[in-house]
Amino acid sequence: MKKVITFGEIMMRLSPPKNLRFSQADSFNIVFGGGASNVAVSLANFGIPTQFVSRLPDNDFGQRAIMELRKYGVGTDYIARGGKRLGLYFLEKGAVSRGGKVVYDRNHSAISEIKRGMINWEKVFGNAQWFHWSGITPAISQQAANVCLEALNTAQELGITISTDLNYRSKLWNYGKSPSEVMPELVEKCDIILGGSYAAKKYFDIDSNDNNSEEGTYRSTCIKLMDRFPKARVIATSLREVISASHNNWSGVLYNGKKFIKAPDYQITHIVDRVGGGDSFMGGLIYGLLTYETDQEAIDFSTAASCLKHTIPGDINLSFTNEVEKLMKGDKSGRVAR
Amino acid sequence: MKKVITFGEIMMRLSPPKNLRFSQADSFNIVFGGGASNVAVSLANFGIPTQFVSRLPDNDFGQRAIMELRKYGVGTDYIARGGKRLGLYFLEKGAVSRGGKVVYDRNHSAISEIKRGMINWEKVFGNAQWFHWSGITPAISQQAANVCLEALNTAQELGITISTDLNYRSKLWNYGKSPSEVMPELVEKCDIILGGSYAAKKYFDIDSNDNNSEEGTYRSTCIKLMDRFPKARVIATSLREVISASHNNWSGVLYNGKKFIKAPDYQITHIVDRVGGGDSFMGGLIYGLLTYETDQEAIDFSTAASCLKHTIPGDINLSFTNEVEKLMKGDKSGRVAR
Amino acid sequence: MKKVITFGEIMMRLSPPKNLRFSQADSFNIVFGGGASNVAVSLANFGIPTQFVSRLPDNDFGQRAIMELRKYGVGTDYIARGGKRLGLYFLEKGAVSRGGKVVYDRNHSAISEIKRGMINWEKVFGNAQWFHWSGITPAISQQAANVCLEALNTAQELGITISTDLNYRSKLWNYGKSPSEVMPELVEKCDIILGGSYAAKKYFDIDSNDNNSEEGTYRSTCIKLMDRFPKARVIATSLREVISASHNNWSGVLYNGKKFIKAPDYQITHIVDRVGGGDSFMGGLIYGLLTYETDQEAIDFSTAASCLKHTIPGDINLSFTNEVEKLMKGDKSGRVAR
Amino acid sequence: MKKVITFGEIMMRLSPPKNLRFSQADSFNIVFGGGASNVAVSLANFGIPTQFVSRLPDNDFGQRAIMELRKYGVGTDYIARGGKRLGLYFLEKGAVSRGGKVVYDRNHSAISEIKRGMINWEKVFGNAQWFHWSGITPAISQQAANVCLEALNTAQELGITISTDLNYRSKLWNYGKSPSEVMPELVEKCDIILGGSYAAKKYFDIDSNDNNSEEGTYRSTCIKLMDRFPKARVIATSLREVISASHNNWSGVLYNGKKFIKAPDYQITHIVDRVGGGDSFMGGLIYGLLTYETDQEAIDFSTAASCLKHTIPGDINLSFTNEVEKLMKGDKSGRVAR
Amino acid sequence: MKKVITFGEIMMRLSPPKNLRFSQADSFNIVFGGGASNVAVSLANFGIPTQFVSRLPDNDFGQRAIMELRKYGVGTDYIARGGKRLGLYFLEKGAVSRGGKVVYDRNHSAISEIKRGMINWEKVFGNAQWFHWSGITPAISQQAANVCLEALNTAQELGITISTDLNYRSKLWNYGKSPSEVMPELVEKCDIILGGSYAAKKYFDIDSNDNNSEEGTYRSTCIKLMDRFPKARVIATSLREVISASHNNWSGVLYNGKKFIKAPDYQITHIVDRVGGGDSFMGGLIYGLLTYETDQEAIDFSTAASCLKHTIPGDINLSFTNEVEKLMKGDKSGRVAR
Amino acid sequence: MKKVITFGEIMMRLSPPKNLRFSQADSFNIVFGGGASNVAVSLANFGIPTQFVSRLPDNDFGQRAIMELRKYGVGTDYIARGGKRLGLYFLEKGAVSRGGKVVYDRNHSAISEIKRGMINWEKVFGNAQWFHWSGITPAISQQAANVCLEALNTAQELGITISTDLNYRSKLWNYGKSPSEVMPELVEKCDIILGGSYAAKKYFDIDSNDNNSEEGTYRSTCIKLMDRFPKARVIATSLREVISASHNNWSGVLYNGKKFIKAPDYQITHIVDRVGGGDSFMGGLIYGLLTYETDQEAIDFSTAASCLKHTIPGDINLSFTNEVEKLMKGDKSGRVAR
Repeated sequence: MKKVITFGEIMMRLSPPKNLRFSQADSFNIVFGGGASNVAVSLANFGIPTQFVSRLPDNDFGQRAIMELRKYGVGTDYIARGGKRLGLYFLEKGAVSRGGKVVYDRNHSAISEIKRGMINWEKVFGNAQWFHWSGITPAISQQAANVCLEALNTAQELGITISTDLNYRSKLWNYGKSPSEVMPELVEKCDIILGGSYAAKKYFDIDSNDNNSEEGTYRSTCIKLMDRFPKARVIATSLREVISASHNNWSGVLYNGKKFIKAPDYQITHIVDRVGGGDSFMGGLIYGLLTYETDQEAIDFSTAASCLKHTIPGDINLSFTNEVEKLMKGDKSGRVAR
Repeated sequence: MKKVITFGEIMMRLSPPKNLRFSQADSFNIVFGGGASNVAVSLANFGIPTQFVSRLPDNDFGQRAIMELRKYGVGTDYIARGGKRLGLYFLEKGAVSRGGKVVYDRNHSAISEIKRGMINWEKVFGNAQWFHWSGITPAISQQAANVCLEALNTAQELGITISTDLNYRSKLWNYGKSPSEVMPELVEKCDIILGGSYAAKKYFDIDSNDNNSEEGTYRSTCIKLMDRFPKARVIATSLREVISASHNNWSGVLYNGKKFIKAPDYQITHIVDRVGGGDSFMGGLIYGLLTYETDQEAIDFSTAASCLKHTIPGDINLSFTNEVEKLMKGDKSGRVAR
Repeated sequence: MKKVITFGEIMMRLSPPKNLRFSQADSFNIVFGGGASNVAVSLANFGIPTQFVSRLPDNDFGQRAIMELRKYGVGTDYIARGGKRLGLYFLEKGAVSRGGKVVYDRNHSAISEIKRGMINWEKVFGNAQWFHWSGITPAISQQAANVCLEALNTAQELGITISTDLNYRSKLWNYGKSPSEVMPELVEKCDIILGGSYAAKKYFDIDSNDNNSEEGTYRSTCIKLMDRFPKARVIATSLREVISASHNNWSGVLYNGKKFIKAPDYQITHIVDRVGGGDSFMGGLIYGLLTYETDQEAIDFSTAASCLKHTIPGDINLSFTNEVEKLMKGDKSGRVAR
Repeated sequence: MKKVITFGEIMMRLSPPKNLRFSQADSFNIVFGGGASNVAVSLANFGIPTQFVSRLPDNDFGQRAIMELRKYGVGTDYIARGGKRLGLYFLEKGAVSRGGKVVYDRNHSAISEIKRGMINWEKVFGNAQWFHWSGITPAISQQAANVCLEALNTAQELGITISTDLNYRSKLWNYGKSPSEVMPELVEKCDIILGGSYAAKKYFDIDSNDNNSEEGTYRSTCIKLMDRFPKARVIATSLREVISASHNNWSGVLYNGKKFIKAPDYQITHIVDRVGGGDSFMGGLIYGLLTYETDQEAIDFSTAASCLKHTIPGDINLSFTNEVEKLMKGDKSGRVAR
Repeated sequence: MKKVITFGEIMMRLSPPKNLRFSQADSFNIVFGGGASNVAVSLANFGIPTQFVSRLPDNDFGQRAIMELRKYGVGTDYIARGGKRLGLYFLEKGAVSRGGKVVYDRNHSAISEIKRGMINWEKVFGNAQWFHWSGITPAISQQAANVCLEALNTAQELGITISTDLNYRSKLWNYGKSPSEVMPELVEKCDIILGGSYAAKKYFDIDSNDNNSEEGTYRSTCIKLMDRFPKARVIATSLREVISASHNNWSGVLYNGKKFIKAPDYQITHIVDRVGGGDSFMGGLIYGLLTYETDQEAIDFSTAASCLKHTIPGDINLSFTNEVEKLMKGDKSGRVAR
Repeated sequence: MKKVITFGEIMMRLSPPKNLRFSQADSFNIVFGGGASNVAVSLANFGIPTQFVSRLPDNDFGQRAIMELRKYGVGTDYIARGGKRLGLYFLEKGAVSRGGKVVYDRNHSAISEIKRGMINWEKVFGNAQWFHWSGITPAISQQAANVCLEALNTAQELGITISTDLNYRSKLWNYGKSPSEVMPELVEKCDIILGGSYAAKKYFDIDSNDNNSEEGTYRSTCIKLMDRFPKARVIATSLREVISASHNNWSGVLYNGKKFIKAPDYQITHIVDRVGGGDSFMGGLIYGLLTYETDQEAIDFSTAASCLKHTIPGDINLSFTNEVEKLMKGDKSGRVAR
């Protein structure tokens, strides 16, 4: 099977154990994660040969990030080494009416100082069928945006399928350019777009507010996005209804230019870890589109996979195709397998 | 008070901390449990003099199992020592739509190689009033089934009350005999039978499917079981409705040949550990039948006891009669006692 | 800003990790807490200059209690040192239908042997605007009650606002006096009274049972309390509906002599730690009355603050004004802040 | 084999993990221990039928203490229940030049309020061959001393061998009597005395200082003790040379009225837990005197057993006869057994 | 660079935390290790492309073992999947005079039921330069020995360098053959032999006892081994002097047919984990022989690498060439690198 | 008593538990430390009123650093808030021949971007008697060096005693200036200088190598330093002999212009945590010079205090004057205090 390539940042995440607040913790649990690396791990867990491309410092923590990726079978052959530090982020888990809290400490990370030419994209895309990138990467720095474009140009030339998760983060984009100056050129090369109305507004000034309903808004966004980006074949989004920090409802929807296809609704009544929910949705979507014959199956797989992610500690979705398919087929019961 | 005897296997259970999956854990929490030993601990906690009979290896882990039983006041005087290993099982806790997972590693355990004559059953049953065994034990090996029969013959001769938990486990029964060849001879000696329609079908080919309702099926099973096993005075079962891996509803019902008696329903909205739920129901039932005047009280105690088990980590029910009776009397509030 | 003074006991709380019962734990988690010290920490977290007054032994654990208070910015300048031991309490966390359990081991603590004159109250109240004490303190010993009265007399002379949390604890009051002999003299000096019908009955023989409704009972209590204690300007109470040990509903109500003002209702569906809920309500109320112009805002702040407390491990409310105000303004969603 | 009886206090010991100081710890590790209970566990581990007699509160922690004793096979049939609290002590582990630190919190424990008649000593000593008590017990309270005497009188009448560990603790003995008023009457009934020059001076005003050598002092103490207590057949002591908190040298010596017999010297270069060293020496000595033919073997076993104790976390000596005998025979190598 | 292949078993190791005994632990730490897999990890850490060949069950724990190998960059392309269980072993860490303790639970593991033909050795050895196996593997079962021979025949045909670690384990070899029936045929194909006098005696009846000195014995063994196995170019052994379970002295020596070459002596005064010491010596030796020009450098590297292993928790040697070379060059100081 | 002021950086230190390497750890233990803040905590623990001056980000981790300081009684009144991040460092603990490892991640910390005028030094030094700064601070950035000079000018004008720890760190000083351009102007204002030959060479090109002995070198350095910096009254240094990462020998020496005064030697045979050893020496020296009459006592206190530091986890010296004085008086035994 031909490879999938993902490109972006992987960070070390530090979080207080249990429900402790930052001010109470005497230790941090360590996991590793990032938009594009989480997608890569999902795909590797689903049996897709995958390479994660990034830049990591040549120290113990850069090496540790590589070890974590290798553990899950993600290829690390094309990761550039260099730069001063690994990006970090701190996560305080929420509960009920107290929301979770993220403190980023990712400035000056190795990938923020990446330069064109550091990655040999022709070599990376040899025998590849799919390239995925996240809207977080061009938000980090001008250099990271440059390398994104460099990768996209090569991928497009080679006729590789391209997907993106728009992933708007307001705290980034502080290197002097607005997303609307950068993102259109990047997104127009994509076949698959994950994202919603808010990012569409911020990135492309697409205004699709439908006063009558959220669904109306979403449908309008999809249609306008596909209008704006004619290369796109699929626009998808996850649907999260936040009851509290401990209980979310979850679903997904896909627009293929012809119709809107919705996945079943899941009640995630006892969230274990919601970080990486969107990335696991993206990973499931790529797997679904690569594997199933129908878009319904693809969005169903994507939604079930990301539903399971919420029950697993850490950023990554340690669930496997048989488990996702069991849930996808309607077994929500969570019985003990013995 | 005369003793209760239980016979079966006790295993070391290893489970990842918190909600970690097997592939994430760097440590396992250790508890000990098994069908008949869990019943024994329940009874000892309720103040009933109890001996657990089994075979355990003569190594640190066999000794540790004995230490755990002694800690809770369970008699270990008649446990045979020998054999090569203690049975293990690994438990990955589920959450919401991700079911728990059990990996057994119990083949070649000491009890699977037990032989007739290793236990002096006449001595074991001296001053005993009740003998309990589980359908798991004859499923382990021909020898374990032989010793079950040996014990049942002696118990029956001595006029001791006999109870069983049918407990069908599809992964066992792989020593060349089907349950329907083995179980009828064993169950016909029992006064109290815990079990449902599925085991009745597998063990005795009792088909009681009522297309109209689950309750109809259950009622039909009870009547047919009592028909088939005329010695039985009570047929009971726990009723588990699985909303998710984190939320089950729970009740119990008892058929005494005259009428069906149901316990109240409990919503277990935040399960702590559901393993051992059935065993704690059995332990509560034996206590209830030994202690209360009415079958209603017996099934109510049994159901409340096993409801509490779901809030306690580990296989065993560390709850006490005053706590069970408080819940049984309707105080479901879970207020802080101070 | 002028200081708030609180007076009472701070104890070391020892609790088994996770959901373990006392008999299962191999370690205790350590936090520190007590009625008046929890109020002090709340106020310090909200930016109010606060001194906590108590008596602590001159050993490692008395010192540790002081370190914990200092960590949160609570002043410890007037804590007397001496006596033999720090009060302890053991907490077993409940779950669903299994209630939490508190075992006190606070007899003979340093504060129980406090004597009049050990605290220089004139000095303590210099530049102070508010004095808070809890009904637990006079329940400890005759000496503690004496020092309470001593403090109240001085505070009243100096025209300082006085608040109390009635906090009836049946296991205390065992030094030979009943609360009805001690409490009236103390409460009559108070401007703000937190407490409900049960304490009103026990302390002041105020019988306000309204057969028709709980709300009727509460309203009647407030009116009778204000009648009995004409100095009181505000009577308030938290409202806890116990669904289970894991799920409570929560609100608060305030009577200012003119009208009853109710806060919104909160569903605390996944309780992390309910201990200190009332103290965080009291702390929020003092802050609210000191800060906001309307009693509605005060009771809303108080209720939102204490709602958040239930999501934070330990006795104290580690939440800050911006967080409380966010919830108070209706954002119950618990989204991740990033 | 006839039983050994030990009488004294068992406490809950709380200690910070690793090398943390009291002020740093966020959790305590829990173990249980006390002079006479540690001796009981040692004996049970060596296969001697043993009953531990004490008084414990009728709460979760009293019950937990019993569970711990049962776990190791110590009989708890004669433990009286009642009183208000379990004695506690806090242990901060030392390292190198920083000594360990013990904070007692044992006042008002259940055994301190024991009364004559609460223990039926005739029943306790039925089928017993040996009674052991520690000098700590009469130091707790007048009542505890009274019950010690009550036990000793009965034991002597029944012709049971009696041993004591003098165990002087300066922080106790604060109920109005000095040890010299209490101890002589108790010790004169003993056949085996463990203790050294310091206790001999404090208890019996035996001054045996030999300016020339420590050994001279010790020999003189033994001879004078045997003179003073003619019933004594054996005087023994452990010899601890404190190099640092992490490194002690260890040996033992026994005087049988005829000669001084010394055990080999052990270098304990990496102490794991030195608490209970003396108790494990006492337990080893009782086992040795009961089992071996020569006093040399007895003191060798005792010394090797207590050497091993220093490598085991907790108060109790979880080592077994084969392990002690291996070390006693000279295998100090600490090779991996596989 | 051409690959190194190692073949053998990898097990899950479960050990109590800190210095706890098996009977005290409530959790086990999990690591993975085995003779040939430890060698593979060492080599991968030193930058040598390495494949580990084995048979692992197709369950979570077989998968986890693969994940651990991948994490360290060991190739797992040729691992056969199947069989019933992963081998386990339990390790109780020793201290001072208490030796460590290993309890094996590896019977019936997947590799014990491996069959000829399950591994395609021609494919495995494509582009390989070195094959390493351990004497533990043929000790497991007849089938495992058969596959060893199968591998050795292929390797020899292909002219690949072969090394073995004799590794005699008395508890294995219980499938009906003695090592002297099996080992000679296997060892005669080897170029590099690691092992000492004890294994030489057990396997080949080589008696080389020199009453005068241990060194004499070792020299005699080497000469006789090289005589007996003329293909061997290097005979090497690690030298461990056990002062206690916490302190070993360590060195290594190599005989190349011409002379005996000794590495420096290291005092390992505070052992962290001695398991895998020999395997890290073997891994270092292979690296050394592949990399350095002189046998002195090879044995120096091997000895320094395995010295460092003793300071690292787990079975595997997580040290890198720069660290080993720093120590090898004489910097034993253990200064903080900052 | 007049205040001591220290100025510098405080960082969050993250270290793997136990002896795990960075690549093995799944969690980090959190402590806080830094040269000048460690000195401040030492002084506060010794009862000296102390303020620590720094700049910290206005986020959870800046706040947490302040909470840690407050916990130990260090004043935080003059800490400026602002900037983007808290400096971090990662510490891998060494053992025996494996040295510890520090990975700094402190670039772009709040203090590196401090500006003149952010601290009101006149206000800071009100009622102060001593100002301490470390050579690490001017090594961070030009701005930090500027503020150092600003502080020193003010302190000198006010006649406050000034001390410095030269503390050369080769990985810093990368903002374009060498230490020899910056340090002379700062050090010439100091009364007390802590440091050795290496820093003297790097900072001031003082070459004092004595081929005959290390002591000769040290003496020569002191004399030349005092020549170069005539304001200095005392030059002191700690003496560390590194046997291994687990065992250091330790002492200290002081030159007062008249004579060299040496403290006793300590063997720290089982190091718990050596980080902060120099800072605790500095803190002890300031306390000693402020408190004792003789320089001998000062250097003895300083050395004993820092010896104890090595037995305490974390960067800070949690030991108290009575403990230091006990060791200083020669009690190295590490007996249990009970």
